[in-house]
Amino acid sequence: MDPNDAVLLLLDHQTGLFQTVNDIDVATLRANTVALAKIAEQAGIPIIYTASEPDGPNGPIMPELTEAAPNAIYVGRKGEVSSWDNEDFVKAVEATGRKTLIMAGVWTSVCVAFPALQAQADGYKVFAVMDASGDVSKMASDAAMLRMANAGIQPVTTNTILSESHRTWNREDAATWGSLYGELVPEYQAVAESYGRAQEAATK
Amino acid sequence: MDPNDAVLLLLDHQTGLFQTVNDIDVATLRANTVALAKIAEQAGIPIIYTASEPDGPNGPIMPELTEAAPNAIYVGRKGEVSSWDNEDFVKAVEATGRKTLIMAGVWTSVCVAFPALQAQADGYKVFAVMDASGDVSKMASDAAMLRMANAGIQPVTTNTILSESHRTWNREDAATWGSLYGELVPEYQAVAESYGRAQEAATK
Amino acid sequence: MDPNDAVLLLLDHQTGLFQTVNDIDVATLRANTVALAKIAEQAGIPIIYTASEPDGPNGPIMPELTEAAPNAIYVGRKGEVSSWDNEDFVKAVEATGRKTLIMAGVWTSVCVAFPALQAQADGYKVFAVMDASGDVSKMASDAAMLRMANAGIQPVTTNTILSESHRTWNREDAATWGSLYGELVPEYQAVAESYGRAQEAATK
Amino acid sequence: MDPNDAVLLLLDHQTGLFQTVNDIDVATLRANTVALAKIAEQAGIPIIYTASEPDGPNGPIMPELTEAAPNAIYVGRKGEVSSWDNEDFVKAVEATGRKTLIMAGVWTSVCVAFPALQAQADGYKVFAVMDASGDVSKMASDAAMLRMANAGIQPVTTNTILSESHRTWNREDAATWGSLYGELVPEYQAVAESYGRAQEAATK
Amino acid sequence: MDPNDAVLLLLDHQTGLFQTVNDIDVATLRANTVALAKIAEQAGIPIIYTASEPDGPNGPIMPELTEAAPNAIYVGRKGEVSSWDNEDFVKAVEATGRKTLIMAGVWTSVCVAFPALQAQADGYKVFAVMDASGDVSKMASDAAMLRMANAGIQPVTTNTILSESHRTWNREDAATWGSLYGELVPEYQAVAESYGRAQEAATK
Amino acid sequence: MDPNDAVLLLLDHQTGLFQTVNDIDVATLRANTVALAKIAEQAGIPIIYTASEPDGPNGPIMPELTEAAPNAIYVGRKGEVSSWDNEDFVKAVEATGRKTLIMAGVWTSVCVAFPALQAQADGYKVFAVMDASGDVSKMASDAAMLRMANAGIQPVTTNTILSESHRTWNREDAATWGSLYGELVPEYQAVAESYGRAQEAATK
Amino acid sequence: MDPNDAVLLLLDHQTGLFQTVNDIDVATLRANTVALAKIAEQAGIPIIYTASEPDGPNGPIMPELTEAAPNAIYVGRKGEVSSWDNEDFVKAVEATGRKTLIMAGVWTSVCVAFPALQAQADGYKVFAVMDASGDVSKMASDAAMLRMANAGIQPVTTNTILSESHRTWNREDAATWGSLYGELVPEYQAVAESYGRAQEAATK
Amino acid sequence: MDPNDAVLLLLDHQTGLFQTVNDIDVATLRANTVALAKIAEQAGIPIIYTASEPDGPNGPIMPELTEAAPNAIYVGRKGEVSSWDNEDFVKAVEATGRKTLIMAGVWTSVCVAFPALQAQADGYKVFAVMDASGDVSKMASDAAMLRMANAGIQPVTTNTILSESHRTWNREDAATWGSLYGELVPEYQAVAESYGRAQEAATK
Repeated sequence: MDPNDAVLLLLDHQTGLFQTVNDIDVATLRANTVALAKIAEQAGIPIIYTASEPDGPNGPIMPELTEAAPNAIYVGRKGEVSSWDNEDFVKAVEATGRKTLIMAGVWTSVCVAFPALQAQADGYKVFAVMDASGDVSKMASDAAMLRMANAGIQPVTTNTILSESHRTWNREDAATWGSLYGELVPEYQAVAESYGRAQEAATK
Repeated sequence: MDPNDAVLLLLDHQTGLFQTVNDIDVATLRANTVALAKIAEQAGIPIIYTASEPDGPNGPIMPELTEAAPNAIYVGRKGEVSSWDNEDFVKAVEATGRKTLIMAGVWTSVCVAFPALQAQADGYKVFAVMDASGDVSKMASDAAMLRMANAGIQPVTTNTILSESHRTWNREDAATWGSLYGELVPEYQAVAESYGRAQEAATK
Repeated sequence: MDPNDAVLLLLDHQTGLFQTVNDIDVATLRANTVALAKIAEQAGIPIIYTASEPDGPNGPIMPELTEAAPNAIYVGRKGEVSSWDNEDFVKAVEATGRKTLIMAGVWTSVCVAFPALQAQADGYKVFAVMDASGDVSKMASDAAMLRMANAGIQPVTTNTILSESHRTWNREDAATWGSLYGELVPEYQAVAESYGRAQEAATK
Repeated sequence: MDPNDAVLLLLDHQTGLFQTVNDIDVATLRANTVALAKIAEQAGIPIIYTASEPDGPNGPIMPELTEAAPNAIYVGRKGEVSSWDNEDFVKAVEATGRKTLIMAGVWTSVCVAFPALQAQADGYKVFAVMDASGDVSKMASDAAMLRMANAGIQPVTTNTILSESHRTWNREDAATWGSLYGELVPEYQAVAESYGRAQEAATK
Repeated sequence: MDPNDAVLLLLDHQTGLFQTVNDIDVATLRANTVALAKIAEQAGIPIIYTASEPDGPNGPIMPELTEAAPNAIYVGRKGEVSSWDNEDFVKAVEATGRKTLIMAGVWTSVCVAFPALQAQADGYKVFAVMDASGDVSKMASDAAMLRMANAGIQPVTTNTILSESHRTWNREDAATWGSLYGELVPEYQAVAESYGRAQEAATK
Repeated sequence: MDPNDAVLLLLDHQTGLFQTVNDIDVATLRANTVALAKIAEQAGIPIIYTASEPDGPNGPIMPELTEAAPNAIYVGRKGEVSSWDNEDFVKAVEATGRKTLIMAGVWTSVCVAFPALQAQADGYKVFAVMDASGDVSKMASDAAMLRMANAGIQPVTTNTILSESHRTWNREDAATWGSLYGELVPEYQAVAESYGRAQEAATK
Repeated sequence: MDPNDAVLLLLDHQTGLFQTVNDIDVATLRANTVALAKIAEQAGIPIIYTASEPDGPNGPIMPELTEAAPNAIYVGRKGEVSSWDNEDFVKAVEATGRKTLIMAGVWTSVCVAFPALQAQADGYKVFAVMDASGDVSKMASDAAMLRMANAGIQPVTTNTILSESHRTWNREDAATWGSLYGELVPEYQAVAESYGRAQEAATK
Repeated sequence: MDPNDAVLLLLDHQTGLFQTVNDIDVATLRANTVALAKIAEQAGIPIIYTASEPDGPNGPIMPELTEAAPNAIYVGRKGEVSSWDNEDFVKAVEATGRKTLIMAGVWTSVCVAFPALQAQADGYKVFAVMDASGDVSKMASDAAMLRMANAGIQPVTTNTILSESHRTWNREDAATWGSLYGELVPEYQAVAESYGRAQEAATK
């Protein structure tokens, strides 16, 4: 994945839809989505996000998303279930001039799979981030992952996107990338904390 | 999926066969099947259903299916395990003039996979609805899903069919579609109920 | 359990709280609660139900509960988390003159365990219906069940209450009880449907 | 699958190897293997079976296999891990003149996957029966299933083979096929027993 | 447990009820029940068994039970859900003059727990065999086990009853006991088969 | 539980020990521990916390704990595994004059169970908070919970402590308590966010 | 637990019986048993071990046990299933003059539960180490744990015994105890390795 | 797989990264990695291993790896996340003149998937060993396995590599291979121990 050719599309991360998610913990799903946004901000990947009927039961976009991604562009829809059916949304993607799409959303089998399959058919290279997405059952997201993968879409998880964007520790902003790993993976955070204290203890 | 080209095939949703299903709750399987039928009725998708030896141990078709799909056509078989081996069944499909088949049934690896693979070979575009189908073990439906997917059949779940048929909230019958989501996803129903009460409380 | 000495207490079965339940499917929880209400109606067991702040995020009582239990008495609370801290609630229980309490609610470890432990201490015989209750994690309801059981409360499930109320098929309303088993246990419904068809086939 | 073109290959169903199986119950694995053998006998599918060092720790072939398949041909090996590396074994397959291979064995990822991939490469059509096979972990058989499926091998389970061989109830030996379903699927056996009693009760 | 003071009570092992069991495999449940019957026959423990409405949807007693326990006494009921509510049943137990009851049945929380709690209250020493019993959910049997255990009933599994009856290999019928372990525990059967072949190989 | 008689003891929530926890997600464990600290701060419950060899591999106390509980008292130990073996620790507890102890820590079966059993024997009323504790396996914490419960210790989870401290919405600081529920239960947070937006939409 | 009053009893850790264990990984069970033996050796706790028919299918004692516990005493049995039925075994325990018994073995519900219940009745204080024991199913060990716990036996895991024996880091042999934690808990070993390297890196 | 054309690449098996692994037990992961190294040593397959920032929180390479593979070549990196981005690493692979790569590492979706996809694109035949690799969640490694498999990479487990390297028992070093199976599969070790004792017993 080339970060310079990529756009991050965050689709329908809404508090009402979160209530229907059963294939991943809501807390983990929200944390991964925030991590994804911060990764994109750090890597200079444009972010476009959208919501399905945010004034209805689907609920508002999770508030911590906009906090994490101050540069993200919001595109409203006119009722379309698939964001790719919305002209403004596709135009916003085209305006970036990029051809690699990183997608995550709720539900995986609908809000991710529909635009992913359409964009793939339109010539984009598509990555579906499974653990920043959620669905009503594991059976649903397993089927969606296989359906997308067999259509040529890359099934990945947030740590893949982090590492594909990061690529090397030999860069000036390495520390920022390090802290992103800690935010994404709770155990990594503990590892880093233990590491710090061990070094402190060794040298005091 | 184009609803105007689609036919829904419900295969052997019989009360005796339900007793052998171990990869999904029987209550969920039945509810998803009813939802699938209502989606098709709402979207104008013809429904054809069939049973394997309904007077024997396999048992009768679940009664709530016919209630939910008053326009569905029943095609009896002459003992064939695969409905696609039955001439009348194939003719009933051909009579619709449609080339996209949405299939669900019990067992996934037999009553769905056999006709799905045959129809796919005959040039149809086939969707297998995993969570309106059931099998004797998760190993069985996992293997069946992979086998079908690698043959070009689309593995989906009921919420995919609902959303592919619904496609947009910007339509006159949006409210009916909304209630179908509530029927299909129990948590969505609770979300909608909470939403209604919150609005009531805000304006009283 | 003596049905003639029992009261059914349904505590905070609210659509907002349902969203936080992770130890049982929401659909199953709701179906079991409805079944419990119908069992009580059939057995002449008085039902008292209550809600915690139904105008706030906790949401309204699930609507199908009042439908299933037309004779149930609703007692509002004044903010108390434990219904047993509310005087009106305890008085409503005392007014029945009965000393056996069947309790279910959301969350198990709070809305059930608190009043259950208090009532047990006040001399009542208490049954906690685990599968018509829900909690934020399996760890939470496991701990609550052990805590209550070690305090002398009987941990049971809905089928226990159904069978303790039913007690014998040798009664005039046996058919009604039979249909309650079918409503409670989806597989039992399928068994009964298969049975009916087998007999029909044998005699036609 | 055409039963008239098929051979059943049972590979290393040995009591020592069974001890290392963790992705399926040993009892289920043995029962499915016996069912597979009976299906083949009934359908006129030749059976060839083999063992890997049966005098060593791998142990003897499960004794109920030979009972169930009196016409099966045993081919000893000279130490080869993959039966397809053994000339006698391949010759025995060739001698049948058939080009469709149904394979099951222990371990899935070795004793099944190796000859399956080799035979597929040699032009055979191969079915891998996942639930009459076993492996040291679910991760191992999941990987093996995906590896084989992506190479063109059909991943199936025993009920697929039963139904593909059976194909129709409209045949003289229907009753025998019926009893094979009962043997393979314990719940189906209970369904049939219930059915019989319901009819008896209806007509007495 | 003293086998000379024990009676085995097998309660409602009926093919219709089996369809509702979700906390244990039906095949395992049936095999354990048969093993329990054979253990009792071998240890001289009287067996009393009963059914709840065997002409209705609950279905007939599993046929292999009577085969395994030719000396078992059947006591019909008059509609009572708890066998202990049936006078004939209690009299049959009393007629044995024994005071230790080993109970198993479907459902654990009803058909086992009700008579177990009643008999315990009547002064009997009661063992509840969890894995020769079944219930509609794991939550149901977990609750039932805790409820019974806290009332003084011993929660055990079939291997406990086998070993408590067997007690020592230093007896004339040791070989019969050995084969019962193999029947009960499929892996033990494989161990014994491997053992036999290893010895054969060593001495040939 | 009377908050005015309670002390919260947080035992060995150290980043090295977190790496060994397998019965609960590390992220959830840390979030629950922080919630517990905030609950205590809000309810005026004194907090005492301690660490086992924080300069060694066990690692430092999780940093967000001290942030959440600015008034908490730290008591160092002199190598004792059980904090109750440390005189300073017991004196710190005694100095509060309170007799109800709420304990959580890593490992449940050691750092919680040892002091819990000792304090219980010394006459304290003890609550063990299972989901703000962690252990090397589910088997370990299941055994520890049963061991403690049978000794008279109350097994609870964080939502119990929150609700026992909160007790009623009819209090001036109700909003603060409301936000604690949202922090503790991610789904509750989403419910509240949806609720707010629904009301906004209704009145705009 | 007072190590100076304790004896460790290792019961039937035999390679044939291991094949029947399904509630814990065999590798973990063996590693925990070895750890238990080393803990006892380090703490000066006498070890007595025994086997049930080691020349038959049950197989030999796991060889690494004797390596880890050079001072352990082996007591042969005369066919008794329960080691407490064997006079020599009870005498060997009595010869130690100690009254606290730490027991582990295969099967939990038989080889551990039988002598545990007998010794408890004889006035011993008994600890059952669940994760150095194994049984044919989780249902079996869950039932056994509850049965033993309700009889007054302490259900524990290996880390409890390690910590109860260790008790404080403030002792001369602290390093040995540290390495025992690493051996018992694989993640702890990784923590310690990371710690060492972090310190090395800090000071180089 | 042709062992004579193969190289084993072990990627980032570091003690800090191990703490973040949730899709496989750390003990199993380490044991499989050691087994993989020993298999390669025995089969004459060159081993190249590497680490990502071993002086930082990721931690040192697991020490038992170098012990098991004395001939392995270590290649340091200059910060690159993907080893294939490091020129020295690719050169070391090219220096072997072999074109088949067996890869394992932590994380599967990053440290294995990245170089695997790159090497595959560069014309190598790649095997990804799933159970000698680890990732932050099962969802992560499931997605990675599907992504790699659909790109043409072979998903396998350690027993596949062992058997593909071993190929036949009819070789001089058969005993060594036999002991490798025992090391890799704990149950196989028990089977072999039982076998040995059975033969000993038969001939004494």
